[in-house]
Amino acid sequence: MQLFYAPTICGPSYILSEEESRHAVKVLRMVEGSRLHLTDGRGNLFEAEVVTPSARGCEVRVLQTFPDYERRPYSLTMGVAPTKNLDRFEWFLEKATEVGVDVIVPIECANSERRIFRPERGEKIIAGATKQSLKAYMPVLEPITPIKKILTRPFKGVKLIAHCRPESERIPINDALVSGRDTLILIGPEGDFTAEEVELALANGFKAITLGTSRLRTETAAIAATIATYLRN
Amino acid sequence: MQLFYAPTICGPSYILSEEESRHAVKVLRMVEGSRLHLTDGRGNLFEAEVVTPSARGCEVRVLQTFPDYERRPYSLTMGVAPTKNLDRFEWFLEKATEVGVDVIVPIECANSERRIFRPERGEKIIAGATKQSLKAYMPVLEPITPIKKILTRPFKGVKLIAHCRPESERIPINDALVSGRDTLILIGPEGDFTAEEVELALANGFKAITLGTSRLRTETAAIAATIATYLRN
Repeated sequence: MQLFYAPTICGPSYILSEEESRHAVKVLRMVEGSRLHLTDGRGNLFEAEVVTPSARGCEVRVLQTFPDYERRPYSLTMGVAPTKNLDRFEWFLEKATEVGVDVIVPIECANSERRIFRPERGEKIIAGATKQSLKAYMPVLEPITPIKKILTRPFKGVKLIAHCRPESERIPINDALVSGRDTLILIGPEGDFTAEEVELALANGFKAITLGTSRLRTETAAIAATIATYLRN
Repeated sequence: MQLFYAPTICGPSYILSEEESRHAVKVLRMVEGSRLHLTDGRGNLFEAEVVTPSARGCEVRVLQTFPDYERRPYSLTMGVAPTKNLDRFEWFLEKATEVGVDVIVPIECANSERRIFRPERGEKIIAGATKQSLKAYMPVLEPITPIKKILTRPFKGVKLIAHCRPESERIPINDALVSGRDTLILIGPEGDFTAEEVELALANGFKAITLGTSRLRTETAAIAATIATYLRN
């Protein structure tokens, strides 16, 4: 199955973007009547066929719609401090999309190594990983957000903050996750969350968790938490 | 803490390799009396001090030895089919080292996309990740091995094979893992294990497992299994 991204689709007829048209017609050599699948990234999967195989704007007609395609029984929001080396954070975006995540919030903390985050490249990586892993839900990449804002904004579900400060109590992530519940997990920068940030989190209903004894980099901790949530459900 | 790799250390005095010497003296500007840590990759952590700060062969003297440093209560052997795009497999080597793995066996299967695997780059990546994550045990990278050989060789512990063939029964990985037990997990190529390979595995005491419903790439499935084992222990 080959999945195409059709973010603005809203009727039986749709014209693929120039990039997607080129891919369909030039690379995959689709012709009139070729079958393909589209997603709007919001849970709808469409089976469609090519009407006009133009490499500049390939027109397709939807034959069948599958709403809520492979919808997960939980939602996962990952708040992660972007790494200094952006490749590592982008790798997390790709892998988390593949495994399963709904919202990714780059967070700015006291010890952050990166405070400016432009979303364009990340959004492209997420779109590519969504198509590659045949998902009809595309994760939302929010703008970079101060940690205090995400700690205090309302969230219905399980709220977890992973940190490495040995002085305060933490429970293993697998004991903190609840299957079927919406979950928000925060992963700090290489220098960890500060004691004040952890305190504010606890005061706002977060539980402190540990990801075991290995020294994990930010992006590894983030994917470990994503995988733990995925396998718990 | 800065960790140096000293594979042939066997006494109180040791001369760092040229690369490590350059790093210690030129990059970190260590001088006579500077403290550093070494590992032999086999579980020993050494605290040492610089005796002769030469960038070509920095001599150090061991002050204290910590055997079995942060030894895990289980061993994990990952048999993984190398990916066509080697970056993806090398990324797995790096991340698995960081999370925790003891032996990595590149496996050759009927549907393998890559049948030749040269270990030099992989070994370098593993050594770098071991030092970066401050581990005293360095994972062993075995030569590429035919799947039949790993299916039939003796292994005391839990033996798992992850596959996506819907016709046969599979249990979720978290239900198959047993904490504290040595574990061997096999991850197949993009085209999956064949029915014959799965059958041979079952006949040899392997349990078939699933990593959930997402379509995971080989290297993502491999890191998911590594993380699941790590978090189970």
